[in-house]
Amino acid sequence: MKRIEYPSAIRDLVGQLKRMPGIGPRSAERIALWLVQSRDARPKEIAETLNNTADSVRPCGKCGFFTVGEICEICSDETRGTESLCVVEMATDILPLERTSVFRGRYHALGGRISPLDHIGPEDLRIRELLDRVKSERPAEVILALGSDVEGEATANYLAGLLREFSVTLTRIAQGMPAGGGLESADELTLSRAMSGRTKMQS
Amino acid sequence: MKRIEYPSAIRDLVGQLKRMPGIGPRSAERIALWLVQSRDARPKEIAETLNNTADSVRPCGKCGFFTVGEICEICSDETRGTESLCVVEMATDILPLERTSVFRGRYHALGGRISPLDHIGPEDLRIRELLDRVKSERPAEVILALGSDVEGEATANYLAGLLREFSVTLTRIAQGMPAGGGLESADELTLSRAMSGRTKMQS
Repeated sequence: MKRIEYPSAIRDLVGQLKRMPGIGPRSAERIALWLVQSRDARPKEIAETLNNTADSVRPCGKCGFFTVGEICEICSDETRGTESLCVVEMATDILPLERTSVFRGRYHALGGRISPLDHIGPEDLRIRELLDRVKSERPAEVILALGSDVEGEATANYLAGLLREFSVTLTRIAQGMPAGGGLESADELTLSRAMSGRTKMQS
Repeated sequence: MKRIEYPSAIRDLVGQLKRMPGIGPRSAERIALWLVQSRDARPKEIAETLNNTADSVRPCGKCGFFTVGEICEICSDETRGTESLCVVEMATDILPLERTSVFRGRYHALGGRISPLDHIGPEDLRIRELLDRVKSERPAEVILALGSDVEGEATANYLAGLLREFSVTLTRIAQGMPAGGGLESADELTLSRAMSGRTKMQS
Protein backbone atom coordinates (compact mmCIF):
# COMPACT_ATOMS: atom_id res chain seq x y z
CA MET A 1 0.00 0.00 0.00
CA LYS A 2 1.34 3.33 -1.05
CA ARG A 3 2.19 5.63 1.79
CA ILE A 4 0.78 9.14 1.33
CA GLU A 5 3.04 11.98 2.42
CA TYR A 6 2.97 15.73 2.14
CA PRO A 7 4.26 17.09 -1.19
CA SER A 8 8.04 17.39 -1.31
CA ALA A 9 7.78 21.20 -1.28
CA ILE A 10 6.33 20.95 2.23
CA ARG A 11 8.83 18.30 3.28
CA ASP A 12 11.68 20.53 2.07
CA LEU A 13 10.40 23.32 4.26
CA VAL A 14 10.04 20.96 7.22
CA GLY A 15 13.65 19.90 6.63
CA GLN A 16 14.87 23.49 6.67
CA LEU A 17 12.87 24.40 9.77
CA LYS A 18 14.12 21.31 11.63
CA ARG A 19 17.67 22.67 11.38
CA MET A 20 16.75 25.60 13.62
CA PRO A 21 17.72 25.27 17.28
CA GLY A 22 14.95 23.94 19.49
CA ILE A 23 12.73 22.95 16.56
CA GLY A 24 11.97 19.23 16.46
CA PRO A 25 10.28 17.30 13.65
CA ARG A 26 6.80 17.87 15.07
CA SER A 27 7.16 21.64 15.55
CA ALA A 28 8.76 21.92 12.12
CA GLU A 29 5.78 20.16 10.53
CA ARG A 30 3.37 22.31 12.52
CA ILE A 31 5.08 25.53 11.44
CA ALA A 32 5.38 24.44 7.79
CA LEU A 33 1.68 23.58 7.60
CA TRP A 34 0.79 26.85 9.29
CA LEU A 35 2.87 28.74 6.74
CA VAL A 36 1.43 26.84 3.79
CA GLN A 37 -2.12 27.39 4.98
CA SER A 38 -1.78 31.10 5.68
CA ARG A 39 -3.85 33.00 3.20
CA ASP A 40 -1.94 36.26 3.53
CA ALA A 41 1.59 37.14 2.49
CA ARG A 42 3.06 35.80 5.73
CA PRO A 43 5.56 33.28 4.32
CA LYS A 44 6.80 35.92 1.87
CA GLU A 45 7.19 38.48 4.64
CA ILE A 46 9.15 36.06 6.79
CA ALA A 47 11.36 35.10 3.84
CA GLU A 48 11.98 38.77 3.10
CA THR A 49 12.83 39.61 6.71
CA LEU A 50 15.17 36.61 6.81
CA ASN A 51 16.96 37.83 3.71
CA ASN A 52 17.13 41.42 4.94
CA THR A 53 18.47 40.43 8.33
CA ALA A 54 21.00 38.02 6.85
CA ASP A 55 22.18 40.78 4.51
CA SER A 56 22.36 43.64 6.97
CA VAL A 57 23.58 42.22 10.26
CA ARG A 58 27.30 41.59 10.69
CA PRO A 59 29.78 41.33 13.59
CA CYS A 60 31.13 44.60 14.97
CA GLY A 61 34.66 45.11 13.62
CA LYS A 62 35.88 45.80 17.14
CA CYS A 63 34.10 43.62 19.68
CA GLY A 64 32.16 41.13 17.55
CA PHE A 65 28.68 42.14 18.77
CA PHE A 66 25.86 42.40 16.21
CA THR A 67 25.63 45.57 14.18
CA VAL A 68 24.31 46.85 10.89
CA GLY A 69 27.19 49.32 10.53
CA GLU A 70 30.93 48.86 10.96
CA ILE A 71 31.11 49.45 14.71
CA CYS A 72 28.36 48.45 17.14
CA GLU A 73 26.31 50.59 19.48
CA ILE A 74 28.40 49.63 22.51
CA CYS A 75 31.81 50.33 20.94
CA SER A 76 30.66 53.66 19.50
CA ASP A 77 29.29 54.85 22.86
CA GLU A 78 31.86 57.43 24.01
CA THR A 79 30.44 57.48 27.55
CA ARG A 80 31.66 53.95 28.16
CA GLY A 81 35.14 53.71 29.56
CA THR A 82 37.97 51.64 28.09
CA GLU A 83 39.40 50.83 31.54
CA SER A 84 37.69 47.43 31.65
CA LEU A 85 37.54 44.97 28.80
CA CYS A 86 35.23 42.00 29.30
CA VAL A 87 36.10 38.93 27.22
CA VAL A 88 33.20 36.58 26.35
CA GLU A 89 32.99 33.49 24.20
CA MET A 90 30.07 34.38 21.96
CA ALA A 91 28.53 37.62 20.75
CA THR A 92 25.30 36.32 22.25
CA ASP A 93 26.89 36.43 25.73
CA ILE A 94 27.12 40.24 25.61
CA LEU A 95 23.47 41.21 25.97
CA PRO A 96 22.77 38.93 28.98
CA LEU A 97 25.72 40.59 30.76
CA GLU A 98 24.61 44.02 29.59
CA ARG A 99 21.13 43.44 30.99
CA THR A 100 22.56 43.03 34.50
CA SER A 101 23.59 46.73 34.37
CA VAL A 102 26.64 45.84 36.47
CA PHE A 103 29.26 46.45 33.80
CA ARG A 104 29.85 49.67 31.88
CA GLY A 105 33.08 48.90 30.04
CA ARG A 106 33.78 47.35 26.65
CA TYR A 107 33.37 43.79 25.43
CA HIS A 108 35.34 41.43 23.24
CA ALA A 109 33.74 38.29 21.83
CA LEU A 110 36.20 35.53 20.93
CA GLY A 111 33.73 33.79 18.64
CA GLY A 112 33.98 30.53 20.59
CA ARG A 113 36.33 28.74 22.97
CA ILE A 114 39.29 26.43 22.58
CA SER A 115 37.87 22.95 22.05
CA PRO A 116 40.15 20.30 20.53
CA LEU A 117 37.20 17.88 20.24
CA ASP A 118 35.44 20.35 17.93
CA HIS A 119 38.71 21.16 16.15
CA ILE A 120 38.65 24.73 17.46
CA GLY A 121 42.13 26.01 18.29
CA PRO A 122 43.33 29.45 19.39
CA GLU A 123 43.88 30.45 15.75
CA ASP A 124 40.12 30.05 15.09
CA LEU A 125 39.23 32.63 17.74
CA ARG A 126 39.54 36.41 17.75
CA ILE A 127 42.57 36.29 20.09
CA ARG A 128 44.95 38.24 17.86
CA GLU A 129 42.33 41.03 17.80
CA LEU A 130 42.06 40.86 21.61
CA LEU A 131 45.80 41.35 22.05
CA ASP A 132 45.74 44.24 19.56
CA ARG A 133 42.98 45.90 21.58
CA VAL A 134 44.83 45.40 24.86
CA LYS A 135 47.88 47.02 23.25
CA SER A 136 46.03 49.99 21.78
CA GLU A 137 43.21 50.60 24.28
CA ARG A 138 45.41 49.85 27.32
CA PRO A 139 42.62 48.70 29.68
CA ALA A 140 43.48 48.54 33.37
CA GLU A 141 41.52 45.29 33.77
CA VAL A 142 40.64 42.40 31.50
CA ILE A 143 37.71 40.37 32.83
CA LEU A 144 37.34 36.83 31.54
CA ALA A 145 33.62 36.02 31.44
CA LEU A 146 34.00 32.57 29.94
CA GLY A 147 32.07 29.41 30.62
CA SER A 148 32.91 27.37 33.71
CA ASP A 149 33.20 24.13 31.75
CA VAL A 150 36.42 22.44 30.65
CA GLU A 151 36.68 24.40 27.40
CA GLY A 152 36.01 27.70 29.16
CA GLU A 153 38.75 26.87 31.70
CA ALA A 154 41.21 25.93 28.96
CA THR A 155 40.51 29.14 27.07
CA ALA A 156 40.88 31.21 30.24
CA ASN A 157 44.23 29.59 31.04
CA TYR A 158 45.48 30.08 27.49
CA LEU A 159 44.50 33.77 27.54
CA ALA A 160 46.09 34.20 30.99
CA GLY A 161 49.38 32.97 29.52
CA LEU A 162 49.22 35.43 26.63
CA LEU A 163 48.19 38.41 28.77
CA ARG A 164 50.98 37.90 31.32
CA GLU A 165 53.32 40.18 29.35
CA PHE A 166 50.91 43.13 29.52
CA SER A 167 50.59 45.32 32.58
CA VAL A 168 46.93 44.56 33.02
CA THR A 169 44.93 43.13 35.92
CA LEU A 170 43.35 39.88 34.81
CA THR A 171 40.18 38.74 36.60
CA ARG A 172 37.50 36.19 35.94
CA ILE A 173 33.84 36.15 36.91
CA ALA A 174 32.99 34.38 40.13
CA GLN A 175 31.96 30.74 40.27
CA GLY A 176 29.60 29.49 42.93
CA MET A 177 26.00 28.81 43.74
CA PRO A 178 23.45 30.02 41.19
CA ALA A 179 20.88 32.47 42.57
CA GLY A 180 17.88 30.81 44.14
CA GLY A 181 19.46 27.37 44.10
CA GLY A 182 19.46 25.29 47.25
CA LEU A 183 22.53 23.28 48.26
CA GLU A 184 20.70 20.04 47.61
CA SER A 185 20.31 20.88 43.92
CA ALA A 186 23.92 21.90 43.30
CA ASP A 187 26.38 19.41 41.88
CA GLU A 188 29.62 18.54 43.61
CA LEU A 189 31.83 20.72 41.43
CA THR A 190 29.64 23.79 41.90
CA LEU A 191 29.64 23.23 45.64
CA SER A 192 33.39 22.76 45.86
CA ARG A 193 33.95 25.94 43.84
CA ALA A 194 31.42 27.85 45.93
CA MET A 195 33.20 26.66 49.05
CA SER A 196 36.74 27.48 47.95
CA GLY A 197 35.62 30.84 46.57
CA ARG A 198 33.89 31.85 49.81
CA THR A 199 33.98 35.57 50.53
CA LYS A 200 34.29 37.39 53.84
CA MET A 201 31.09 38.98 55.18
CA GLN A 202 32.57 40.72 58.22
CA SER A 203 35.92 40.57 59.96
CA MET B 1 21.56 54.80 31.21
CA LYS B 2 21.00 53.81 27.63
CA ARG B 3 19.63 50.33 27.22
CA ILE B 4 21.53 48.30 24.64
CA GLU B 5 19.40 46.08 22.42
CA TYR B 6 20.00 43.98 19.34
CA PRO B 7 19.92 45.91 16.04
CA SER B 8 16.40 46.41 14.70
CA ALA B 9 17.14 44.00 11.82
CA ILE B 10 17.47 41.22 14.39
CA ARG B 11 14.44 42.40 16.33
CA ASP B 12 12.38 42.42 13.11
CA LEU B 13 13.33 38.80 12.52
CA VAL B 14 12.49 37.89 16.13
CA GLY B 15 9.10 39.52 15.58
CA GLN B 16 8.42 37.47 12.47
CA LEU B 17 9.56 34.22 14.07
CA LYS B 18 7.40 34.86 17.15
CA ARG B 19 4.30 34.72 14.95
CA MET B 20 4.94 31.05 14.19
CA PRO B 21 2.92 28.54 16.20
CA GLY B 22 4.71 27.25 19.28
CA ILE B 23 7.52 29.81 19.05
CA GLY B 24 7.74 32.06 22.10
CA PRO B 25 9.89 35.18 22.50
CA ARG B 26 12.86 33.23 23.86
CA SER B 27 12.89 30.59 21.11
CA ALA B 28 12.42 33.32 18.50
CA GLU B 29 15.46 35.19 19.81
CA ARG B 30 17.48 31.99 19.96
CA ILE B 31 16.61 31.08 16.35
CA ALA B 32 17.22 34.63 15.06
CA LEU B 33 20.66 34.75 16.67
CA TRP B 34 21.47 31.31 15.33
CA LEU B 35 20.49 32.43 11.84
CA VAL B 36 22.45 35.67 12.07
CA GLN B 37 25.55 33.88 13.32
CA SER B 38 25.53 31.12 10.72
CA ARG B 39 28.49 31.59 8.46
CA ASP B 40 27.04 29.64 5.55
CA ALA B 41 24.11 30.44 3.27
CA ARG B 42 21.58 28.96 5.70
CA PRO B 43 19.27 31.96 6.17
CA LYS B 44 19.18 32.43 2.38
CA GLU B 45 18.38 28.77 1.84
CA ILE B 46 15.56 28.85 4.35
CA ALA B 47 14.16 32.05 2.82
CA GLU B 48 14.32 30.47 -0.62
CA THR B 49 12.62 27.27 0.51
CA LEU B 50 9.93 29.35 2.20
CA ASN B 51 9.29 31.25 -1.00
CA ASN B 52 9.30 28.11 -3.15
CA THR B 53 6.95 26.27 -0.86
CA ALA B 54 4.60 29.24 -0.56
CA ASP B 55 4.55 29.52 -4.35
CA SER B 56 4.14 25.87 -5.25
CA VAL B 57 1.86 24.32 -2.64
CA ARG B 58 -1.89 24.82 -3.06
CA PRO B 59 -5.06 23.04 -1.94
CA CYS B 60 -6.21 20.11 -4.09
CA GLY B 61 -9.10 21.25 -6.28
CA LYS B 62 -11.09 18.24 -5.19
CA CYS B 63 -10.47 17.39 -1.55
CA GLY B 64 -8.45 20.35 -0.25
CA PHE B 65 -5.32 18.37 0.68
CA PHE B 66 -1.93 19.85 -0.13
CA THR B 67 -0.62 19.45 -3.63
CA VAL B 68 1.74 21.06 -6.09
CA GLY B 69 -0.46 20.18 -9.05
CA GLU B 70 -4.21 20.58 -9.56
CA ILE B 71 -5.32 17.32 -7.97
CA CYS B 72 -3.55 15.70 -5.01
CA GLU B 73 -1.90 12.31 -4.72
CA ILE B 74 -4.87 10.79 -2.91
CA CYS B 75 -7.55 12.00 -5.35
CA SER B 76 -5.53 10.94 -8.37
CA ASP B 77 -4.94 7.43 -6.99
CA GLU B 78 -7.27 5.24 -9.09
CA THR B 79 -6.88 2.28 -6.72
CA ARG B 80 -8.77 4.12 -4.00
CA GLY B 81 -12.51 3.61 -4.07
CA THR B 82 -15.13 6.35 -4.13
CA GLU B 83 -17.56 4.32 -1.99
CA SER B 84 -16.52 6.13 1.20
CA LEU B 85 -16.00 9.85 1.53
CA CYS B 86 -14.43 11.03 4.77
CA VAL B 87 -15.17 14.65 5.71
CA VAL B 88 -12.61 16.42 7.89
CA GLU B 89 -12.30 19.98 9.12
CA MET B 90 -8.77 20.84 8.05
CA ALA B 91 -6.46 19.59 5.31
CA THR B 92 -4.02 18.84 8.13
CA ASP B 93 -6.47 16.26 9.52
CA ILE B 94 -6.04 14.03 6.47
CA LEU B 95 -2.53 12.70 7.00
CA PRO B 96 -3.07 11.70 10.66
CA LEU B 97 -6.08 9.63 9.52
CA GLU B 98 -4.15 8.29 6.54
CA ARG B 99 -1.32 7.14 8.80
CA THR B 100 -3.69 4.84 10.67
CA SER B 101 -4.04 2.78 7.44
CA VAL B 102 -7.65 2.05 8.41
CA PHE B 103 -9.31 4.06 5.67
CA ARG B 104 -8.79 3.65 1.93
CA GLY B 105 -11.48 5.95 0.52
CA ARG B 106 -11.46 9.62 -0.41
CA TYR B 107 -11.32 12.72 1.78
CA HIS B 108 -12.97 16.11 1.77
CA ALA B 109 -11.58 18.96 3.87
CA LEU B 110 -14.09 21.65 4.75
CA GLY B 111 -11.42 24.22 5.52
CA GLY B 112 -12.74 24.75 9.05
CA ARG B 113 -15.88 24.27 11.10
CA ILE B 114 -18.96 26.36 11.77
CA SER B 115 -18.05 28.75 14.57
CA PRO B 116 -20.22 31.84 15.08
CA LEU B 117 -17.75 33.20 17.64
CA ASP B 118 -15.04 33.26 14.97
CA HIS B 119 -17.53 34.55 12.36
CA ILE B 120 -17.24 31.32 10.37
CA GLY B 121 -20.54 30.28 8.83
CA PRO B 122 -21.43 27.43 6.43
CA GLU B 123 -20.79 29.73 3.46
CA ASP B 124 -17.12 30.04 4.49
CA LEU B 125 -16.59 26.28 4.28
CA ARG B 126 -16.27 23.97 1.29
CA ILE B 127 -19.79 22.59 1.79
CA ARG B 128 -21.12 23.42 -1.70
CA GLU B 129 -18.15 21.42 -3.07
CA LEU B 130 -18.96 18.53 -0.72
CA LEU B 131 -22.57 18.33 -1.95
CA ASP B 132 -21.35 18.47 -5.57
CA ARG B 133 -19.01 15.56 -4.88
CA VAL B 134 -21.75 13.53 -3.18
CA LYS B 135 -23.94 14.14 -6.27
CA SER B 136 -21.27 13.23 -8.83
CA GLU B 137 -19.19 10.58 -7.04
CA ARG B 138 -22.22 8.93 -5.39
CA PRO B 139 -20.44 7.48 -2.35
CA ALA B 140 -22.30 4.81 -0.39
CA GLU B 141 -21.08 6.28 2.89
CA VAL B 142 -20.09 9.70 4.10
CA ILE B 143 -18.00 9.59 7.29
CA LEU B 144 -17.89 12.73 9.40
CA ALA B 145 -14.48 12.85 11.07
CA LEU B 146 -14.97 16.21 12.76
CA GLY B 147 -13.83 17.41 16.15
CA SER B 148 -15.83 16.36 19.20
CA ASP B 149 -16.10 19.92 20.51
CA VAL B 150 -19.14 22.21 20.24
CA GLU B 151 -18.16 23.55 16.82
CA GLY B 152 -17.48 20.08 15.47
CA GLU B 153 -20.90 18.93 16.74
CA ALA B 154 -22.64 21.93 15.19
CA THR B 155 -20.92 21.33 11.85
CA ALA B 156 -21.80 17.63 11.94
CA ASN B 157 -25.46 18.41 12.65
CA TYR B 158 -25.59 21.01 9.90
CA LEU B 159 -24.09 18.58 7.36
CA ALA B 160 -26.45 15.81 8.50
CA GLY B 161 -29.37 18.10 7.65
CA LEU B 162 -28.03 18.81 4.17
CA LEU B 163 -27.16 15.19 3.40
CA ARG B 164 -30.57 13.86 4.39
CA GLU B 165 -31.88 14.27 0.83
CA PHE B 166 -29.17 12.01 -0.61
CA SER B 167 -29.32 8.25 -0.49
CA VAL B 168 -26.10 7.94 1.44
CA THR B 169 -25.24 6.34 4.77
CA LEU B 170 -23.98 9.02 7.12
CA THR B 171 -21.67 7.96 9.95
CA ARG B 172 -19.36 9.71 12.32
CA ILE B 173 -16.17 8.55 13.99
CA ALA B 174 -16.55 7.06 17.45
CA GLN B 175 -16.21 9.08 20.62
CA GLY B 176 -14.91 7.50 23.78
CA MET B 177 -11.82 6.90 25.84
CA PRO B 178 -8.50 7.81 24.24
CA ALA B 179 -6.06 4.92 23.92
CA GLY B 180 -3.93 4.39 26.99
CA GLY B 181 -5.97 6.73 29.14
CA GLY B 182 -7.22 5.57 32.51
CA LEU B 183 -10.72 6.38 33.69
CA GLU B 184 -9.36 8.67 36.39
CA SER B 185 -7.83 10.98 33.79
CA ALA B 186 -10.89 11.25 31.55
CA ASP B 187 -13.26 14.18 31.91
CA GLU B 188 -16.95 13.75 32.59
CA LEU B 189 -18.08 14.36 29.01
CA THR B 190 -15.62 11.85 27.57
CA LEU B 191 -16.72 9.27 30.12
CA SER B 192 -20.43 9.81 29.47
CA ARG B 193 -19.86 9.50 25.71
CA ALA B 194 -17.72 6.41 26.19
CA MET B 195 -20.46 4.91 28.33
CA SER B 196 -23.37 5.67 26.02
CA GLY B 197 -21.36 4.54 23.00
CA ARG B 198 -20.46 1.20 24.56
CA THR B 199 -20.11 -1.66 22.09
CA LYS B 200 -21.01 -5.32 22.47
CA MET B 201 -18.09 -7.72 22.97
CA GLN B 202 -20.01 -10.96 22.92
CA SER B 203 -23.65 -11.84 23.07
